[in-house]
Amino acid sequence: MTDKNLPEPPEHLSSDDFRKHGHALIDWIADYWERVEELPVVSHVAPGAIRNHLPPNAPETGEPFENLIKDLDSVVMPGITHWQHPSWFSFFPANASPPSVLAELVSAGLGVQGMLWSTSPAATEIESHVLDWLVELLDLPASWKTTEQGGGVLQMSASDSTHTALVVARHQAAKLGISPDSMVAYASTQTHSSIQKGATVAGYGHITLIDVDEEQAMRSQDLRAAIDRDRANGLNPVFVAATVGTTGTTGVDPIRSIGEICRNEDLWLHIDAAYAGNAMLCPEFRHHQDGVELADSYTFNPHKWLMVNFDCSVFYVADRGPLIDCLSILPPYLKNEASESGAVIDYRDWHVPLGRRFRALKLWWVIRSYGAEGLRSMIRYHVALAEQLASRLESDPRFDLVAPHPFALVCFRCTEGDEATTRLIEAVNASGEVAWTGSELDGHPMIRVSIGQRATEQRHVDALWALIDELA
Amino acid sequence: MTDKNLPEPPEHLSSDDFRKHGHALIDWIADYWERVEELPVVSHVAPGAIRNHLPPNAPETGEPFENLIKDLDSVVMPGITHWQHPSWFSFFPANASPPSVLAELVSAGLGVQGMLWSTSPAATEIESHVLDWLVELLDLPASWKTTEQGGGVLQMSASDSTHTALVVARHQAAKLGISPDSMVAYASTQTHSSIQKGATVAGYGHITLIDVDEEQAMRSQDLRAAIDRDRANGLNPVFVAATVGTTGTTGVDPIRSIGEICRNEDLWLHIDAAYAGNAMLCPEFRHHQDGVELADSYTFNPHKWLMVNFDCSVFYVADRGPLIDCLSILPPYLKNEASESGAVIDYRDWHVPLGRRFRALKLWWVIRSYGAEGLRSMIRYHVALAEQLASRLESDPRFDLVAPHPFALVCFRCTEGDEATTRLIEAVNASGEVAWTGSELDGHPMIRVSIGQRATEQRHVDALWALIDELA
Repeated sequence: MTDKNLPEPPEHLSSDDFRKHGHALIDWIADYWERVEELPVVSHVAPGAIRNHLPPNAPETGEPFENLIKDLDSVVMPGITHWQHPSWFSFFPANASPPSVLAELVSAGLGVQGMLWSTSPAATEIESHVLDWLVELLDLPASWKTTEQGGGVLQMSASDSTHTALVVARHQAAKLGISPDSMVAYASTQTHSSIQKGATVAGYGHITLIDVDEEQAMRSQDLRAAIDRDRANGLNPVFVAATVGTTGTTGVDPIRSIGEICRNEDLWLHIDAAYAGNAMLCPEFRHHQDGVELADSYTFNPHKWLMVNFDCSVFYVADRGPLIDCLSILPPYLKNEASESGAVIDYRDWHVPLGRRFRALKLWWVIRSYGAEGLRSMIRYHVALAEQLASRLESDPRFDLVAPHPFALVCFRCTEGDEATTRLIEAVNASGEVAWTGSELDGHPMIRVSIGQRATEQRHVDALWALIDELA
Repeated sequence: MTDKNLPEPPEHLSSDDFRKHGHALIDWIADYWERVEELPVVSHVAPGAIRNHLPPNAPETGEPFENLIKDLDSVVMPGITHWQHPSWFSFFPANASPPSVLAELVSAGLGVQGMLWSTSPAATEIESHVLDWLVELLDLPASWKTTEQGGGVLQMSASDSTHTALVVARHQAAKLGISPDSMVAYASTQTHSSIQKGATVAGYGHITLIDVDEEQAMRSQDLRAAIDRDRANGLNPVFVAATVGTTGTTGVDPIRSIGEICRNEDLWLHIDAAYAGNAMLCPEFRHHQDGVELADSYTFNPHKWLMVNFDCSVFYVADRGPLIDCLSILPPYLKNEASESGAVIDYRDWHVPLGRRFRALKLWWVIRSYGAEGLRSMIRYHVALAEQLASRLESDPRFDLVAPHPFALVCFRCTEGDEATTRLIEAVNASGEVAWTGSELDGHPMIRVSIGQRATEQRHVDALWALIDELA
């Protein structure tokens, strides 16, 4: 019984055309990575310039696919700031890599949802397994594995991970009858904006920022005093965010002493190691997070330094019970035998969204393609390049390092003063040959040089130094 | 001055190998889409079966890329439930399509961050522009465009959009001195779990669920009464979520009468049209959201029915002021001239995360590749197939439709009773030939048949009907 009046479905790109254009776009990306070094790092289009190329209305009928590819070069590229440029020394890296991009392609093509174990068991099990691998690779507490009491889940960004931790801690405290209005979250003055934003979003009434010492690390004795002061004022301390590798200067908060305070005071300790957590692949950096076993939650971003393209943020909890207790809601259309058996993980209960891609595929492929040794050598190479640049700056009387450089970020100023620093920031950016970030510390300008793009070589850092030397 | 003691960086997959494996994986996806119809729709692996294939530890040295591709077939595929199968009648669709998947590939390869306008102007401007296109395509209020008072932003999922709306509404109410503990969010009993979850996450003290009528639509007179009752009890009504196309049965809440209540009571009206919003491309469905101009925020998911692969959720606000006021935090390392000029949009201020991919590329490519007419014809084809199936069920005494079917979801039961319905659910699922969802309504089992996979044709729905006819 076929209805002859049925409307026609649309035509899709044929399988042959998909193959043809797919091959062309793979080559387009390979070409892009080969030639990106020749492009100006930062886009200099004026606001509105890209929109001016776009027609005011969507097309009524489909366009040939060739037009889309053509516009990639003519419309899109002028508005791209090249995060994959080897002279990208600006924000922390957001590295794409061949195995990661190919996994992203496959994940999109499979188009499965990993919200429940049952909606694609491979998506969930590979995620749990690979995050358990990383517990060992980073020497994190074994109890954080999904096979133990804790567990890892892929979030989109460290902001999401931190927000989730804040919400779970708030939920736990609310069960004791504490109002969010009276809850306090603590972090250092050098903490990433996502902590303050996350606390606002999660509805904490108060955020107390703790001073840092000359090494940009939270003063734990000040934390101790602030907790007492807040309690005396009738507030309820709930959450502490400690950072390993702050965004401003890669400062490292003293995890053990902060952790001991949290244990004594029954506060949730969250560690934000978004950037520096990747370095824990190498044993020589692990002393920076001594005391990590005192944490309730921990986040780091393989999409920064581990060659997994954005987004891929890892979130561990020491105990998955409170997380699931806070975030699990079960409507009838999601009920299924596997979930009810308790034998599986349903990752929808581990974060705010319900739907989720096959997120782990690219992390799995990157670890397998490079091997742990390959990933470690990337970290060590960048750190060595940063040390080299820091030595040059340190031994030159025109420059002052403004903070330690435990990883691969070097922060400095011109000894001549603020104006000279600001002039140098602008002169280097105007060259178009490199990107770096002008920032501030203690009310004075400073320059952040982040070394971590996967294609960055000695010669790129040498060229940066030559530019600094010439323009200072 | 080159340090000879510098460690070696890792070897990356060569450009040639990336091209070779990239071409192979494009073909792998094309082959997959061609053969997916022959695979059992739902994976039937046992819990742990996929993990059992994986080595207990990560590899120390890199593996040949061929191994990764091989494991795609041997390890991953048995654990995949095929959302791209044309006999996918289970959850609402999550369609991948050729232009979308190719755009996802390019976005991953470019690897840019769209958190600020300045970090890649093309990412921001194409997003704003395409979401303005959609305002016209869907006949939403013109004031919601980014060029006017409102604006659109791509979120990851409708859960994220709804959570964001809840947070902004809470933030506005808190400015009036109202405590979140006393705030009430309203939704119907048929609302998606993300509303309840979002309200919990956002810290609302109360969620009041309003009964639905026999068409599964919220009773607005009951909403009115509940608001009065809650106020009388000292609570503070803040937020109403109205749904156009509920997940259970595609029920449609009366937007105009709910909107008028919200205007009179100064409540935030959020519309969740995650699935059905896509149908508004076609004028004949727009009467279902009459009154949409009364909304403060609106979400729908092109990753459901518009052939943009997950994730791609659109979030509109009628006024972007409160959104940015709630979510903007500006640390020194994010300061830049373009943002300070006020001439650009920085999308980091429009959602919880900071980092974001070049999200709009795939939406732009899909709209251009299919054209508005192509997208409309997809919707109309699916709706016609659903009407056809509903007619067959309706005219057969063995079955009862349990709800209207305004879009492409058909919900029914066996007239014989609950046991017969449950038996039918299981018998059809056991066949492995199709996937559908057994759910519940009013405490009794029912069957959800969602027609919307992009490759679904008349013959697939005919085969489903034959199966129902045989097994009932």
